[in-house]
Amino acid sequence: MPIPTNQPGQNRCVIERVTPELDAGRYAIKATVGDVISVEADVFADGHDKISARLLYRPESAADWLEVPMNPIENDRYGASFLIEKEGFYRYTFVAWVDHPLTWQHEITLKIRDGQRVEVELLSGALFFDEMATLALPDDARALQAAAKLFRDKRGYEHALHLATGPDVKAWIARYPLRHHATRYDRELAVYVDRERARFGAWYSLFPRSTHPEPGQHGTFRTTAALLPRLADMGFDVLYIPPIHHIGTAFRKGKNNAVTAQPGEPGVPYGIGSELGGHDAIHPDLGTLEEFKALVEESQTFGIEVALDLAIQCSPDHPWVRDHPDWFRLRPDGTIQYAENPPKKYQDIYPLNFETDDWRNLWEELKRVLLLWGAWGVRIIRVDNPHTKAFGFWEWVIAEVKAEYPDMLFLSEAFTRPKVMQQLAKLGFSQSYTYFAWRETKAGLTQYLTELTQGEMRHYFRPNFWPNTHDILTWPMQSGSEALYLSRFFMAATLSSNYGIYGPVYEYLEHTGIPGKEEYFNSEKYEIRHWNWQHVNKLTYVIGLVNKARRENSALQHTNNITFCDIANDHLLAYLKTHADGNRILCVVNLDPAQTQAGQVRVPFDKIGKGPDEEYLVRDLLTDAAYVWRGETNFIALDPHVLPMHLFRVEDLYR
Amino acid sequence: MPIPTNQPGQNRCVIERVTPELDAGRYAIKATVGDVISVEADVFADGHDKISARLLYRPESAADWLEVPMNPIENDRYGASFLIEKEGFYRYTFVAWVDHPLTWQHEITLKIRDGQRVEVELLSGALFFDEMATLALPDDARALQAAAKLFRDKRGYEHALHLATGPDVKAWIARYPLRHHATRYDRELAVYVDRERARFGAWYSLFPRSTHPEPGQHGTFRTTAALLPRLADMGFDVLYIPPIHHIGTAFRKGKNNAVTAQPGEPGVPYGIGSELGGHDAIHPDLGTLEEFKALVEESQTFGIEVALDLAIQCSPDHPWVRDHPDWFRLRPDGTIQYAENPPKKYQDIYPLNFETDDWRNLWEELKRVLLLWGAWGVRIIRVDNPHTKAFGFWEWVIAEVKAEYPDMLFLSEAFTRPKVMQQLAKLGFSQSYTYFAWRETKAGLTQYLTELTQGEMRHYFRPNFWPNTHDILTWPMQSGSEALYLSRFFMAATLSSNYGIYGPVYEYLEHTGIPGKEEYFNSEKYEIRHWNWQHVNKLTYVIGLVNKARRENSALQHTNNITFCDIANDHLLAYLKTHADGNRILCVVNLDPAQTQAGQVRVPFDKIGKGPDEEYLVRDLLTDAAYVWRGETNFIALDPHVLPMHLFRVEDLYR
Repeated sequence: MPIPTNQPGQNRCVIERVTPELDAGRYAIKATVGDVISVEADVFADGHDKISARLLYRPESAADWLEVPMNPIENDRYGASFLIEKEGFYRYTFVAWVDHPLTWQHEITLKIRDGQRVEVELLSGALFFDEMATLALPDDARALQAAAKLFRDKRGYEHALHLATGPDVKAWIARYPLRHHATRYDRELAVYVDRERARFGAWYSLFPRSTHPEPGQHGTFRTTAALLPRLADMGFDVLYIPPIHHIGTAFRKGKNNAVTAQPGEPGVPYGIGSELGGHDAIHPDLGTLEEFKALVEESQTFGIEVALDLAIQCSPDHPWVRDHPDWFRLRPDGTIQYAENPPKKYQDIYPLNFETDDWRNLWEELKRVLLLWGAWGVRIIRVDNPHTKAFGFWEWVIAEVKAEYPDMLFLSEAFTRPKVMQQLAKLGFSQSYTYFAWRETKAGLTQYLTELTQGEMRHYFRPNFWPNTHDILTWPMQSGSEALYLSRFFMAATLSSNYGIYGPVYEYLEHTGIPGKEEYFNSEKYEIRHWNWQHVNKLTYVIGLVNKARRENSALQHTNNITFCDIANDHLLAYLKTHADGNRILCVVNLDPAQTQAGQVRVPFDKIGKGPDEEYLVRDLLTDAAYVWRGETNFIALDPHVLPMHLFRVEDLYR
Repeated sequence: MPIPTNQPGQNRCVIERVTPELDAGRYAIKATVGDVISVEADVFADGHDKISARLLYRPESAADWLEVPMNPIENDRYGASFLIEKEGFYRYTFVAWVDHPLTWQHEITLKIRDGQRVEVELLSGALFFDEMATLALPDDARALQAAAKLFRDKRGYEHALHLATGPDVKAWIARYPLRHHATRYDRELAVYVDRERARFGAWYSLFPRSTHPEPGQHGTFRTTAALLPRLADMGFDVLYIPPIHHIGTAFRKGKNNAVTAQPGEPGVPYGIGSELGGHDAIHPDLGTLEEFKALVEESQTFGIEVALDLAIQCSPDHPWVRDHPDWFRLRPDGTIQYAENPPKKYQDIYPLNFETDDWRNLWEELKRVLLLWGAWGVRIIRVDNPHTKAFGFWEWVIAEVKAEYPDMLFLSEAFTRPKVMQQLAKLGFSQSYTYFAWRETKAGLTQYLTELTQGEMRHYFRPNFWPNTHDILTWPMQSGSEALYLSRFFMAATLSSNYGIYGPVYEYLEHTGIPGKEEYFNSEKYEIRHWNWQHVNKLTYVIGLVNKARRENSALQHTNNITFCDIANDHLLAYLKTHADGNRILCVVNLDPAQTQAGQVRVPFDKIGKGPDEEYLVRDLLTDAAYVWRGETNFIALDPHVLPMHLFRVEDLYR
């Protein structure tokens, strides 16, 4: 049956207030395979006739719409859902119509119950059956024709009454809808379906140049590859490395961001480009392109992906400065405008000017770089400060790159105002850094997670929680408290299905900041560091256990499935994560790094599928301790000097 | 200066989340002359440059946009407002741009304060001035040229610094914006501006056939006109009368909706049409067309408008049934489908079928009727049950009629589900009946008024509050309590700037219902009644005083200007209405018709322009009693047997 399109004048249904729908369909929502998309709409017609509505959806590649009947929720609101089964774009929209056969069955039933004669109404029914028969499968068509004949035969009156009000007619009406004058929703909405890694992954960031086993040596792709077994053992999915290109020498910065580098200092990887090459070239001290590709390939054998870093900015030595001075802002004295945050100057960095009249070539060049990286085998891009480049560029380039590499993922490193961060996510970024590092209290964390997972953002903004990055060492982390490093790591990894740590520094509890700043002292951005990559401690042990639990528990592989649990102690944060497959994880964290905190956690028993007095087991996946709990309220005490958290799996008791 | 249009690629601003905006601009908001429309939008760009944004608006008839700078509210949200000065459509939209001169001034100021040399920055400023001068008025152009020259002259360095950071440059930047690569909002939104009566009016409904001074006589337009002085004295603005057309005889209903009329019974005015004519003809017992026009004209001399009633339905004798049987639903036996609410039958009424293939002619005929009524001088139409006719028809016919008669107002009599009522308002109805009659408790009234006046509905849905209608006598009103009739009238007239009563019945406290129904016994719908039109009582006295107060106090001429006041007694409802001209009205109502109720009302002193300890006067406009109050909390006691309400005007004390 063809789905009707709008016929102005005679259609009577209205479809509106659709959710999810971002800015009247301007932006796509996001999903991964296996997600169930639940949609709602207001649907109504004039008068008192019955209406029917259907959700229409299809993968963009499919020619035909699939139809799902919509069910009433309340007050003219209807809902339906569909399962995402493949990657790429899906579309969804709606159709609704005044359902005359359904109205007819409703009304004839009332009249028959009232004892009225309904000969004429039966004739109306016969006309409906005639038309349905033209749409029906052969068996149904024969049954419909027989019913129409019966309804026209005065001798079959009693039998017809029975049939008219019964389930067969109801089923035919649903199966062969007569959709004259149907209303089609006037927008087709989009879902972009990414691969699973968009939704779920543990990131580890390091500087390859700091991976050499010998102190004082420049690390390489090969010494980085040597760390893969360790990262795999610890359960990481993504290895993110800062820019790997040539580093400029003009205005090169020294250790701790000194204005002038000393001879022999390596410079900042974000001062991209030298006369030897720009974003499409590789720093020779790290190795060759072949060695980089080998790192990418070897990572895959450990189940790890390498994420590259796109920082759209140049050192004064970058080839673009020579070849395309018009891509930069020129000062009236003929020099190129360096980066500024007045009164501060960053003369080692030239920002690109997205208002350049040659913007088309600039965009194409940046696309070329990304496609080149794709050809190198890279499928994850961490984008440095995307909020300082034009929005329109991101929307275009992400779409262009995904057209070539649909599995390419983009992480937005925008630590800026909420609406700017939201906009970048709407425009296509697969994941986004967040304010998590600065949400420290129970109230702050609860409010922020509620905003991310319960509001409109849940449809398009995938958070990636980092307790630290190579740019960020928050004030509390400067205490170096082991309990705090444990709890912050744990919350990042269990509140959000995507998280990351800036690795060796975190593992070592390195915590010296630059005075007055939330930044690392002796930062690897400005110098080569040396780490003992064999070390183990409580933190590395817990990281391994938590990552293992994440891989084994589907509830930890999603972010929006969170419910906060009441617990009358502001130092204790408790949250339940559940998945449709029955997996239930209850996390409890002591936010106080100094003292044992205790309280009664209230488990919403309906969400764990238990009655109010039913017993169940909670098993701590970190210690393997198991407790039998009953009902809603159960006691918790957490000593931060032992472990500041529980990672409980809720299990059924059979005895 | 031309306002830029979008140039994809180089524009960097985003404009979104506009309010008010109904369904992405699909529907117009409503206003009347003198209203100030406040709009907001999220506006932001990439990066850290300063941006500027402007609201653009114009009456649809004007060629040029008027511009209003938008001011930041918080977090990338901006606001602006504009005054409505004429009737008809207005349009509004937005433009935003990265403001390079503004950014320049901000940054050079920081550098100068930091003691940096800014010769190059001054040259940048000179370039901006050069361009601004091409846009500027002659005096400013000369000043800008001089400034550019100064900025290029090393000898004037100190003077240039002074100028660069000062107010002159700031003013030039605002006055002559350089709007390269500006972003235009991609929707132009609409406001429909009605005349004042759309916003403010007291309606009185009566049946003209019941206006004859002699019992047993059929009232006429002339006997109706004789009541105009009384209605004017009582302060009413609109006289609404049920259909005035021929009444069918087939299946005519008798007294109290008897299935069969007795000989001589007049029938129901809603059983429209006989062989003598339909919606374009007049019942001869009421008078001639000339007499109807005379009623309309004479009303105007009393400041009263006559509202006609459009009920799109036919008696079986209506000419349309004979001439256009295809405008109705045909049953399989060849008869026309009468109205039903199964198992109930209404064989005296044939509904029109808006799914007819001949819908174009049906729509045109209904438009012809409305334009004819317009030609008779009618400018207000009360529409009976619009929710049982196709939405698309209303949108079309209201627009068509307003194209001819822009001052035509339409009141929607849809007592149905919320979204259907909202849809009719969005499609163009000027006013709407509401659930007011069934909102009886303090909580129910507060919640409903909040929904109507604080949510999105305030932009398009103008409530018209009726404590009764000729179809509705609520259960509490069936008590006949004088206090209840007083308080319900009072709330209708003060909560909403549009209200009405079904008059003589209300004034007489007639309260006998049909057992088990919220309907009048001996309803005028089915018979001619006789009333003493000279009577006066407490109710008529209060009606006159309240209508006078409405005319003299601008705060009562608006609906959305309401603030509920705390008062710790569930039987007492208190609300403040304020207007920008300084008028402040405080209403307090005792909802308990039996007992005196007392409490402390908390007046939000900031809304009345008073300090927390300041004295002011409240003068009861019903009794002329005046009290000196101080601060927020003041005592109220209301005896329902005296008067169940205060209508206070807040006045300043000068002593």
